[in-house]
Amino acid sequence: MGRWYIDKGPESDVVISSRVRLARNFRKYPFPSKLDKEQGGRVLEEVKDAVFNSNSTLAGDVTFIDIKALNPIEKQSLVEKHLISPELAENGRESGLLISRDEKISIMINEEDHLRIQCMFSGMQISDAWKLCNNIDLLLESKIDFAFSRQYGYLTCCPTNIGTGIRASVMLHLPGLVMTGYIKGILEACGKLGVAVRGIYGENSYASGNMFQISNQVTLGQKEDEIVTGVTNIASQIIEQERMLRAELHRQNPYRFEDKIYRSFAVFSSARIISYEESLKLISDVRLGLDMGIIKGISIETLNEIMLLIQPASLQKTAGSVLGPDERDIKRAEIIRNKLKVN
Amino acid sequence: MGRWYIDKGPESDVVISSRVRLARNFRKYPFPSKLDKEQGGRVLEEVKDAVFNSNSTLAGDVTFIDIKALNPIEKQSLVEKHLISPELAENGRESGLLISRDEKISIMINEEDHLRIQCMFSGMQISDAWKLCNNIDLLLESKIDFAFSRQYGYLTCCPTNIGTGIRASVMLHLPGLVMTGYIKGILEACGKLGVAVRGIYGENSYASGNMFQISNQVTLGQKEDEIVTGVTNIASQIIEQERMLRAELHRQNPYRFEDKIYRSFAVFSSARIISYEESLKLISDVRLGLDMGIIKGISIETLNEIMLLIQPASLQKTAGSVLGPDERDIKRAEIIRNKLKVN
Repeated sequence: MGRWYIDKGPESDVVISSRVRLARNFRKYPFPSKLDKEQGGRVLEEVKDAVFNSNSTLAGDVTFIDIKALNPIEKQSLVEKHLISPELAENGRESGLLISRDEKISIMINEEDHLRIQCMFSGMQISDAWKLCNNIDLLLESKIDFAFSRQYGYLTCCPTNIGTGIRASVMLHLPGLVMTGYIKGILEACGKLGVAVRGIYGENSYASGNMFQISNQVTLGQKEDEIVTGVTNIASQIIEQERMLRAELHRQNPYRFEDKIYRSFAVFSSARIISYEESLKLISDVRLGLDMGIIKGISIETLNEIMLLIQPASLQKTAGSVLGPDERDIKRAEIIRNKLKVN
Repeated sequence: MGRWYIDKGPESDVVISSRVRLARNFRKYPFPSKLDKEQGGRVLEEVKDAVFNSNSTLAGDVTFIDIKALNPIEKQSLVEKHLISPELAENGRESGLLISRDEKISIMINEEDHLRIQCMFSGMQISDAWKLCNNIDLLLESKIDFAFSRQYGYLTCCPTNIGTGIRASVMLHLPGLVMTGYIKGILEACGKLGVAVRGIYGENSYASGNMFQISNQVTLGQKEDEIVTGVTNIASQIIEQERMLRAELHRQNPYRFEDKIYRSFAVFSSARIISYEESLKLISDVRLGLDMGIIKGISIETLNEIMLLIQPASLQKTAGSVLGPDERDIKRAEIIRNKLKVN
């Protein structure tokens, strides 16, 4: 498929993905929540013009998607892939998406801000994500007059984004910290260090499958590079602690540790009906088993692909029809067995 | 191995095994609980003499085992195979066992009664078990003067065995009745029909792995043939009901039904540490899956063999050493994977 999330990135034993997004607004238009339909349309057209009439490779790489034209399953499928926010899927405004073929780049138009430039990479590649975001920002800034204040920096709809407008985040898989209960201390420490921790689908979402997203809380008063470095450093410490705990848990009771992993892998590859929530729990164990060399014969790329395909909307998109809850759970089990090549 | 319990018997989808035992006593000696050491030794010798100095094939087929000479694991292993009772293993008397090569025949000496002649067959073969028991009884009776009263029949230590001294039983696997809750009604009906229902290890034992032993309660006032027929008829009705419920459960929700079976089989063949109790639960699902053609690639004979090998004492006998609880659970998981030929 050539999508970024199938790749195995650096430090993939703990880091699922890295993401950087920049919030930007036109100086001449009110924020999206205050835009009328006609103005909203003009924002869309001016962004498209800036991208497609540029000499950059971006012009040939991205596609425009009119969010209004999508059905609920298509929209939800984009949310599941983190390509758009739930807010963009539902706001009913003149909103759009520019998306690159490998889905590394997604530019949301008329979300909370006029522009949300987002770059996602597999594994620990947060500075690469930042570099790509920055290049796109420079390209757009050469065509669009962004709302910028000498005193505050970039102006954004929500004051928490003002200044750099940057949000740098990494998605970490932390079963060792969860199993030992050390995650509590980590979460508290992160709060004190100006880093936010969230579940897999952003704010207020529960940390399913032991996956935690950590990101900067402050956007003002620090340079982008410093913010990216700050998140990277904290992530590195968490990664080291996670690795140490995994090794220690395994050392203390290898049979119990491996038993849990083998059982989860067995159920994962044998179920005939399985919920999304349960899948995530099992995937966490399977990923841990893969990372530690306990499970062999499947690749992390396959697991990454499964993780995306089994989400409720992606599932229905694959099936080509709207499915009831039981049908989804049956289809999910089918997809997993199919991808793992078991019967 | 050529042992009876490895065979696949008739109606093996529901019937694990059939067993008939006869209680007999010497007229000239007090019941075992009242025997002194010297008398106990004489009972042993006279039984051995009756068997080994006969012209029957039995003489060449059975081996004598001195119970006192066995270590606790060897004794417990015989209990697990239902070849001796816990009572015989522990009574500390001059007690012995005559056992055939295929382990179909076991004759306990100086258990509760001087003689307990027991024949076990795989599946529904209760009348064959009775025929074999009867032949052994006739052979022994030609040499030994059994305690017999014209009025009561054979005299036994416990009044519940008096008369015919027969106990005819079948071990049934009843997951359908358990899942639907219909088992309660069956248990009540059995009580009213003079049939006792017990768990896998006889009186007061819990029905692990959905296995239930049904047997006659009355030994007096009915001929042996009638008792055997009575147990057979009640068993047949339960078997039919069990089959009907299995089919109905599967029909109502094939995905959920098969899901449970596939998951249990997956865990069973993948665990690295597993308790006996959990194994029995999983075996129940696996057996059901095999019987219904859902699971393929393993035989009921393999499952029968596993069921015996994974019992706590049999396990330690195989391992050749006394094992702690965790070591047993690890060894059990190894044996299962080994027998199922998975890694």
